[in-house]
Amino acid sequence: MASLTIRLHPADNVVVAGADLLPGTRLPGTDVACGTTVPAGHKVAVQPIAAGEPVRKYNQVIGFATAAIAPGEHVHVHNLSMGDEFERDYAFGADARPTDLVPEAERATFQGIRRADGQVATRNYIGVLTSVNCSATAARLIADHFRGAALAAYPNVDGVVALAHGYGCGMGAQGDAIDALRRTIAGYARHPNFAAVLIIGLGCEVNQVDRLVEAEGLELGARVRTLSIQDLGGTTAAVREGIRLIEALLPEADAVVRRPLPASHLTLALECGGSDGYSGITANPALGHAVDLLVRQGGTAILSETPEVYGAEHLLTRRAVSRAVGEKLVERIRWWEDYTSRTGGEMNNNPSPGNKKGGLTTILEKSLGAVAKAGTTALTEVYRYAEPVTAKGLVFMDTPGYDPVAATGQVAGGANVLCFTTGRGSVFGSKPVPCLKLATNTALFRRMPDDMDIDCGPIASGDATIEEVGRRIFQMILDTASGTKSKSELIGVGSDEFIPWQMGAVM
Amino acid sequence: MASLTIRLHPADNVVVAGADLLPGTRLPGTDVACGTTVPAGHKVAVQPIAAGEPVRKYNQVIGFATAAIAPGEHVHVHNLSMGDEFERDYAFGADARPTDLVPEAERATFQGIRRADGQVATRNYIGVLTSVNCSATAARLIADHFRGAALAAYPNVDGVVALAHGYGCGMGAQGDAIDALRRTIAGYARHPNFAAVLIIGLGCEVNQVDRLVEAEGLELGARVRTLSIQDLGGTTAAVREGIRLIEALLPEADAVVRRPLPASHLTLALECGGSDGYSGITANPALGHAVDLLVRQGGTAILSETPEVYGAEHLLTRRAVSRAVGEKLVERIRWWEDYTSRTGGEMNNNPSPGNKKGGLTTILEKSLGAVAKAGTTALTEVYRYAEPVTAKGLVFMDTPGYDPVAATGQVAGGANVLCFTTGRGSVFGSKPVPCLKLATNTALFRRMPDDMDIDCGPIASGDATIEEVGRRIFQMILDTASGTKSKSELIGVGSDEFIPWQMGAVM
Ligand SMILES: [Ca+2]
Ligand SMILES: [Ca+2]
Ligand SMILES: [Ca+2]
Ligand SMILES: [Ca+2]
Ligand SMILES: [Ca+2]
Repeated sequence: MASLTIRLHPADNVVVAGADLLPGTRLPGTDVACGTTVPAGHKVAVQPIAAGEPVRKYNQVIGFATAAIAPGEHVHVHNLSMGDEFERDYAFGADARPTDLVPEAERATFQGIRRADGQVATRNYIGVLTSVNCSATAARLIADHFRGAALAAYPNVDGVVALAHGYGCGMGAQGDAIDALRRTIAGYARHPNFAAVLIIGLGCEVNQVDRLVEAEGLELGARVRTLSIQDLGGTTAAVREGIRLIEALLPEADAVVRRPLPASHLTLALECGGSDGYSGITANPALGHAVDLLVRQGGTAILSETPEVYGAEHLLTRRAVSRAVGEKLVERIRWWEDYTSRTGGEMNNNPSPGNKKGGLTTILEKSLGAVAKAGTTALTEVYRYAEPVTAKGLVFMDTPGYDPVAATGQVAGGANVLCFTTGRGSVFGSKPVPCLKLATNTALFRRMPDDMDIDCGPIASGDATIEEVGRRIFQMILDTASGTKSKSELIGVGSDEFIPWQMGAVM
Repeated sequence: MASLTIRLHPADNVVVAGADLLPGTRLPGTDVACGTTVPAGHKVAVQPIAAGEPVRKYNQVIGFATAAIAPGEHVHVHNLSMGDEFERDYAFGADARPTDLVPEAERATFQGIRRADGQVATRNYIGVLTSVNCSATAARLIADHFRGAALAAYPNVDGVVALAHGYGCGMGAQGDAIDALRRTIAGYARHPNFAAVLIIGLGCEVNQVDRLVEAEGLELGARVRTLSIQDLGGTTAAVREGIRLIEALLPEADAVVRRPLPASHLTLALECGGSDGYSGITANPALGHAVDLLVRQGGTAILSETPEVYGAEHLLTRRAVSRAVGEKLVERIRWWEDYTSRTGGEMNNNPSPGNKKGGLTTILEKSLGAVAKAGTTALTEVYRYAEPVTAKGLVFMDTPGYDPVAATGQVAGGANVLCFTTGRGSVFGSKPVPCLKLATNTALFRRMPDDMDIDCGPIASGDATIEEVGRRIFQMILDTASGTKSKSELIGVGSDEFIPWQMGAVM
């Protein structure tokens, strides 16, 4: 039961063509017929729009008509552009609405693990973290010891995972770069999905383990232990000691029980990568609906990827719960302008020629496609990269768009589930946190069945609504948080994808 | 048979205290007695030095006396500083001498593997390379398949090694950063220590495999193959295909024979990390002597770590075979000044308070300690990061000082042996190339016996000369190139240490 058009919101005055539409084609659910050819992915008016009037998609203004537009007319660069005033008006909080919370007694639950400190886990790993690349092999050798049958006696332990990285020396001992690295490692060290962690250093690195522990206020003890290769007498001795420590930790780590816990304990990271023309009209809005459901349950969702919203940050400042929260976002945008101008990057989220060919007209429309995965609730807080996320509701964390770096920051912030929309086919995973991959189109879902968790393609074909798929996503989030393995977990993805943001020069 | 002082060159007018020297201590091999206390690692004059005269260490000028210095007097910041004219004078080629090559018939040999294209290997691995982090897990899963007994039938294959990295997307599609990444991956793809390589991409990454192959002129065929995860239908399918391809490659990869080959086929990478007060007086000069021996055999050595020579690049420009070669080095120094000023790094190799406490007086002396590992022969060429090294003799490759990033560039350039000096205790390894670690002091050698290959401490205790240890290093280079495993190979270090230089902003 395919549909020819996709209506992203009942209040919209345009719909999106789900296939190439010929002149005379009747638009489903309307009296309107196409006046011209409208290519798949492009917009067609379903109401008359006077010159100067806003064009609405996702129930959001994506720009203003530059000429009168008749119902059935193709809406694109020839008759739509973005108004300058709109662009410059942050309108802090203008569109923030109070969240319609589900009463506590009626809240959805999942089978979660409550830790001694009150945090809630969705998985139960032991982590081997590193301060510097120099301890990467020691960490991996320790984790390798616990492959295969070594954990057979500990069925509640999901694994021992080494999260090494390429950084930690050849960098300044002070400043943004080492601060972000420390926050990242400390965020993983505290993550509830780890029953316990070892942090292994070499000894002479810039990113000293002791200073990291002190700066981040980590409490050393059974849950967080540190090792120094140089102090212990080398790699082999450090590996032996690490194995010994983990063997001692396993019985307690195994003694966990999953119990029904309210969905308010979920912190969902939102990612997209390998986008296509369907991202903004299928998977992202469906994920956005799931986010609205989660936020109404008292849960948290983290939108990120600052370069993707650049130029359309107004979309978020209007939804900020306060001017202060909105201004934090604007401050991050200014930071990126400086960062990229210094390092030769380019901040420009304008629709590319390829985007325009696919039907995207304005920067607002493009960013709305990315921001659609954040749903419609108010923006309650803005975080720097890898900062601990403590607010409830929809929050923003400043990260690059690059998937492994973005997800690493979100997990460091405390995300315990991740949803990743993809049109081209991402194969991402993010230990110790389960990652669900949402295909924007059915062809991808069929082509990469071992990597894709959910097919959002039926939205484009008219076989499911955004809300239906959103409810499916929300249910799969609950099931996954309860222990059902995602595709990337079944394959074993997620330990090579820990990539802290390297912000500064390598010296 | 401990000695109280270390004489770095017979022509020097200072020696280095090997222990704290008390007033009245007779300096070995001289008539001179200490006039004052001289702390271990500090310099003491063995000849009268008039005010304004050069102070020589390593047979190099490290500065000029700021007052008359008597034999037996402590030489440090109170009576030694660097002359401004010296600092500013590149004196291109002033100290370059023709190399006293060993006649071909008398040359040292090692048991090497000659490849079909004429390149010479010291190891025989199969490599699994990646264009982007998104294919890291696929690469690792392929390599994991060949662990343990899987290669038992192929005794001449050293292993299947996955060299994944954290980069390749979220970056500009043009410019220095992607050029350096492409050079790095292509350099590994061509490396003689790989019998064959697979390059695995995701499909939608910025660092497109096809463009990498084209830009770097890689020839696809049995030796270099490429895979795309998205084209193949996902991770599992790509892993299956990668395993199938490698299984088909193994019989031919195993059909190699080591034969005696002249040492001129060796390209030795020079590294230091975790330096201490002994680095510049034991391991580095001993390695420098080994480099002189190798260069006289017609071989090649690669000095790197530009930030370590910064401010004393004159040491190298004076040894350049031509003004053009010297100017290439100066151009790289200027590039670093711009890079660090843009990215908030600091180029300053001046002796730190800790260095001064340890006895280092001037920037020249400090850099001489680092450059000492490059011996005394002429500088024949200067390369950018990861460029193919084709010149013979001593060359310079521009890299950061950070060990894994520096070594990755050198191996990409074609290094087939690596020597790494360390005072604090590095545990580095660099598959597919063997890495020898040279301890600057005996205490370290004893404390980390599973990581250290050579003890250079006997130079400080007077139990061996720089030349004796240098000859031992040279012999161990030949043995290692012939197949004897280094300590890091025995432990299994080297696949997590492939870290291409990430130069630009992460977007
Ligand atoms: Ca994206
Ligand atoms: Ca992304
Ligand atoms: Ca890695
Ligand atoms: Ca160094
Ligand atoms: Ca180094």
